[in-house]
Amino acid sequence: MDLDVVFLGTAASVPSAGRGLSSVLIRRGGDRILIDCGEGTQRQLMRSTGLADLDVILITHLHADHVLGLPGLVKTFGLRDRDKPLVIAGPAALQQFWNAMRRTVIGTLPYDVEIVPVHHEVAWRGDGYRVEAVPTEHGVPSVGYVLIEDDRPGRFDADRARELGVTDVRDYGVLQRGGDVPAVDGRIVRPADVLGEHRHGRKVVYTGDTAACGAVRDAARDATLLVHEATFLLEDSERARMTRHSTAHDAALTAAAANVQLLALTHVSTRYAPAALAEEAASVFPDVVVARDFDRIDLPFPERGGPVHEPRGVRPSRGAREGEPSTAEPLDAAIEAEA
Amino acid sequence: MDLDVVFLGTAASVPSAGRGLSSVLIRRGGDRILIDCGEGTQRQLMRSTGLADLDVILITHLHADHVLGLPGLVKTFGLRDRDKPLVIAGPAALQQFWNAMRRTVIGTLPYDVEIVPVHHEVAWRGDGYRVEAVPTEHGVPSVGYVLIEDDRPGRFDADRARELGVTDVRDYGVLQRGGDVPAVDGRIVRPADVLGEHRHGRKVVYTGDTAACGAVRDAARDATLLVHEATFLLEDSERARMTRHSTAHDAALTAAAANVQLLALTHVSTRYAPAALAEEAASVFPDVVVARDFDRIDLPFPERGGPVHEPRGVRPSRGAREGEPSTAEPLDAAIEAEA
Repeated sequence: MDLDVVFLGTAASVPSAGRGLSSVLIRRGGDRILIDCGEGTQRQLMRSTGLADLDVILITHLHADHVLGLPGLVKTFGLRDRDKPLVIAGPAALQQFWNAMRRTVIGTLPYDVEIVPVHHEVAWRGDGYRVEAVPTEHGVPSVGYVLIEDDRPGRFDADRARELGVTDVRDYGVLQRGGDVPAVDGRIVRPADVLGEHRHGRKVVYTGDTAACGAVRDAARDATLLVHEATFLLEDSERARMTRHSTAHDAALTAAAANVQLLALTHVSTRYAPAALAEEAASVFPDVVVARDFDRIDLPFPERGGPVHEPRGVRPSRGAREGEPSTAEPLDAAIEAEA
Repeated sequence: MDLDVVFLGTAASVPSAGRGLSSVLIRRGGDRILIDCGEGTQRQLMRSTGLADLDVILITHLHADHVLGLPGLVKTFGLRDRDKPLVIAGPAALQQFWNAMRRTVIGTLPYDVEIVPVHHEVAWRGDGYRVEAVPTEHGVPSVGYVLIEDDRPGRFDADRARELGVTDVRDYGVLQRGGDVPAVDGRIVRPADVLGEHRHGRKVVYTGDTAACGAVRDAARDATLLVHEATFLLEDSERARMTRHSTAHDAALTAAAANVQLLALTHVSTRYAPAALAEEAASVFPDVVVARDFDRIDLPFPERGGPVHEPRGVRPSRGAREGEPSTAEPLDAAIEAEA
């Protein structure tokens, strides 16, 4: 089951030529989960993965730089004749924002939208995984999101099954799916006899904007990937505290305490060179990257290796309609300019 | 007095990799006038002219693709400590949109915003020019905008002044500013004696979204530049009629009837190759260009020549703060992809 994270907008508060406003796309199998939707997100999608047919949009908090892309995106879905319902989850204030947008600029849509208020609960449940909301600390109602895959069955020990007298390979599948089978000598062989311990699924954490916070640290325990905001450097920690943001140092401490596999910093201010954020974090937690727009982080099953950061790793897609120019060239010039 | 138009977003309804949503910037001397503010406009400014300290934002109508960049832009001005008041003018529904945005995502700003409802009146008055709102036909309250420079004094005839006995060159200035002066023989020389006919100022028309309409044709009479929407080709004129949009053919007919100097087509749909729009219009009105994002049209005083279309003619500016990466590289790859 493929799982990756595509960074659509990695800027803090204000966009720049190279960085759009906050948004990431999580792709798991055929599911498409958008977290945050800053102004310009629909165009960032068009430039990278194409305008994915999202299943759910998760909003971390109602600050302008995290939600102003929402009305345009849902409107565009409407213009493209979407009929699949869309779930939009976020803190309770999302409903008020949605109502205001609906009344003033969205109007009617050809599909249903369900607004789901979340605080500390399962915000979305997919086939084989769930996404939990975790309260964060940003001075307004805010949450982070944790995608948690279901445990997978333990590794099947075929040698052991043969030893116990299971000779029909079709019975291997029955055992792996949790069923009992008879051995050649008539004894019953149970899954526990031939399967190793359950294996944890993968876990992806996205903090949204927050001060360093225990809830995130707990939720990120052993995560495959922690996407943590890093609006400031330690030298500006007083400002970070006042605005309820994190420093790169805070993010790294959380990553270390939670024992995550990879830390990706986002919400990058033009105030700093991205390399300075990476350096500060790496002094505490070495497995860190600073995300740029259109970066991709691939998350294979652990037995196939750890997370892989692919800078600007999203393959541009071509326009779907005849004669439509490419809608997906990444912003090479702009991005190179920042490199 | 410099006057030009910078295209910040030239897409119809939905953005693409190469085209942002509707917005143009008019620069006259030190004045900065933004017309329409689709989602992503602040970033388009950052990529081109830099985040200009706008004097006024003029909204043509309250459709999502023309206004959703407004809250993010005013918010960014706030984060950058703007204190100069900002005028935002548009059809009456603008006030409702503004109230909803203010309440939900904008919050308090460190500068004053004045919302000015316009229908058919002067929407903005600058030093030496005015911008008039002109009612258009788009099925919702909508206006176009016409920037009209004040007439300039006629050409000063120095030879004639000398003939009439004006010998002090300082008196030339008095006459040019409208004052009388005594000649050497004591007779009074009046401005009318030495100045040619008043010269019309330049005129720039921006239609916003509209069906072909007489009010625009009248307002565009002898305009230096007519920026006209061209959402459809003639082959889709039924659809244009239904949605109250124009075809390239409609725009060209208006340009011809109004005797404008240059027609620039915008609100370009991914449905068509831009060259097809240009071709259709040129068969009726040859002085036509199809605008792309970051194109500039320079409008010198007529005695210095006609309008000059500079494709991608905006000089990128560098970030103002120390260590800030360039915020203004145009989207070369994306734009080339569409070329």
